[in-house]
Amino acid sequence: MQSPEQASSPSVAHLAGVGTALPGDPVDNAMLARTLGVNEEWIDVFIGTRTRHFARDLVSGEVRWSLADLCARAGEQALTASGLAPDEIDFVVMGTATPDHLMPATVNHVADQLGLDQIPTYQLQSGCAGAVQALELGRTLVTGGGHRAGLVIGGDVCSKHLDLDRDLSGAAPSDLVNYVLFGDGAGAAVVTSEARGERLALRGVLNRFTGLGREPGQVIDWFGLADRYDDRQAVREDYKAIEESVPVMAVEILWELLEDLDWSPEQVDFLLPPQLSGRMTRRITEQLDLPDAVEVSCVADTGNNGNALPFLQLEGLLEKIGPGQRALAVAVESSKWIKSGFALEKI
Amino acid sequence: MQSPEQASSPSVAHLAGVGTALPGDPVDNAMLARTLGVNEEWIDVFIGTRTRHFARDLVSGEVRWSLADLCARAGEQALTASGLAPDEIDFVVMGTATPDHLMPATVNHVADQLGLDQIPTYQLQSGCAGAVQALELGRTLVTGGGHRAGLVIGGDVCSKHLDLDRDLSGAAPSDLVNYVLFGDGAGAAVVTSEARGERLALRGVLNRFTGLGREPGQVIDWFGLADRYDDRQAVREDYKAIEESVPVMAVEILWELLEDLDWSPEQVDFLLPPQLSGRMTRRITEQLDLPDAVEVSCVADTGNNGNALPFLQLEGLLEKIGPGQRALAVAVESSKWIKSGFALEKI
Repeated sequence: MQSPEQASSPSVAHLAGVGTALPGDPVDNAMLARTLGVNEEWIDVFIGTRTRHFARDLVSGEVRWSLADLCARAGEQALTASGLAPDEIDFVVMGTATPDHLMPATVNHVADQLGLDQIPTYQLQSGCAGAVQALELGRTLVTGGGHRAGLVIGGDVCSKHLDLDRDLSGAAPSDLVNYVLFGDGAGAAVVTSEARGERLALRGVLNRFTGLGREPGQVIDWFGLADRYDDRQAVREDYKAIEESVPVMAVEILWELLEDLDWSPEQVDFLLPPQLSGRMTRRITEQLDLPDAVEVSCVADTGNNGNALPFLQLEGLLEKIGPGQRALAVAVESSKWIKSGFALEKI
Repeated sequence: MQSPEQASSPSVAHLAGVGTALPGDPVDNAMLARTLGVNEEWIDVFIGTRTRHFARDLVSGEVRWSLADLCARAGEQALTASGLAPDEIDFVVMGTATPDHLMPATVNHVADQLGLDQIPTYQLQSGCAGAVQALELGRTLVTGGGHRAGLVIGGDVCSKHLDLDRDLSGAAPSDLVNYVLFGDGAGAAVVTSEARGERLALRGVLNRFTGLGREPGQVIDWFGLADRYDDRQAVREDYKAIEESVPVMAVEILWELLEDLDWSPEQVDFLLPPQLSGRMTRRITEQLDLPDAVEVSCVADTGNNGNALPFLQLEGLLEKIGPGQRALAVAVESSKWIKSGFALEKI
């Protein structure tokens, strides 16, 4: 963790630009009710998410964009926003839970689409802490790894898990929630060693597995040719554990970041809280209790698109943050209880 | 790339210990002929792999070990070999193409099994360049990231793709090869900032996507609930492209490493060539043309277990390498044409 006095030194990384990509038009709860038979009022009250985006057309079932497509679009936007040329990019780090294929890693298709070549590409298998993990690795690569700039990307696409042929009329709430809470999308940031473009100094990053001995709070499974007829639920969450643990962990992350940075709560101008669903994010934000900070959230409108979320929040942040102002982001991955977060200062 | 004069400085990473795990007993070609109906002589002549290991029992179909199980076992062995205590491990980086689940990332289950907690965990989605990518990130984290030691792991398990119910009698060679060339396994290394344990200095690492505009040479797909009945081949290789490109790329990697390190070919005591199959590795090694170097290969006996291979080679290397001796490893990932390699010196 760097001290605030290091305004711009080679050991501090910066975000020079941010880009995002949301596939297609927003899908609202009325449409989900019409096409999937889910109760609209139930979504409004219990989930609190208003719209989300899907790469798969809900009516025709056609998959219109791959994860690579969305990540490349977000990456291209981030590059343009940063002012850097593509040949200044020394590496790509991407995080996702839902790669297009197991091999090649999707990050390589993204590099291909962006015209990037002859550079290291890394893809993290991760849930919603993935964007932070990717930012952390990007930061390490530009501060300690001898690189000057890199592209960091996060995205998720649930097309392979969105079974549109299912009759959802008798489905349990724990099943229905997967159809209404999640969405697709991608986001990206250009990370630089020197302050350029948007000049957002990355003051600190927190990323830590804390799940020793704990049951997973979320499991997403995949099938191969040998087990694809198995009758098992591929996407499942322990919402009781999530509702119990995530707010507590979020508060712990917040206070640990503040302490490491020696920031008082009043010095936080913008708060980027964990993005789960409209309702849960509201609850967690209240418990984070930073009444003077402006909240920057997106999930009620973008849907929960995992690795894309912090980048969507960063895009919202950049519309508001001014020189000298500070932001704190918190993300909790309930798969195996990963604590993550980061701190920014516009310089 | 560090110069050879920096025998042991904080900017050079070291491998302190290596561990591996191969599930069950070796499965030879006669057994594959008996249980799967594959022609034994064809395997001997065209593949040249003698044995491999499977986490799934070929007769009963029971999956006996998960990827997490194998990686934890390899990690435990590496820790013991290194002499470091578990609480000295500051991070875990793991590479695989075949995670047990999409979430939680398998690396977190591995950390759980090893009793590791409160540290960053990273999992790379990668093919056989993954072990090198993981070593590169491990190196960056101990030299530039302020960490003193970490665990780097690579492993693959093909259980979900090993469809034992298929009648292979009429299968095309391009299909059969997937059943005889691949295997399961895991390997690990403890990476340290200072020289400890085995005192293998990591003199250089090469890791680069070079697949701009090139068709994938290997694709491994996964299914979700929405597409699991789709009739598509989940594991496919372009062996023509592989046979054309991999030897050429391997030679390029070798000479680039030698040039960056300013090593002459005669200074290479041990060569760890790309591990594809018994036959292909023999061909590539001939083309690498380092007649004075001792070859360290394993694939004809371990099977092609992707991310585990370089660690299995490292284990073989440690049985032979003496102080002052040097080793060069080359790995080519044909998914989207990733060049990778690394150089070691026992100090």
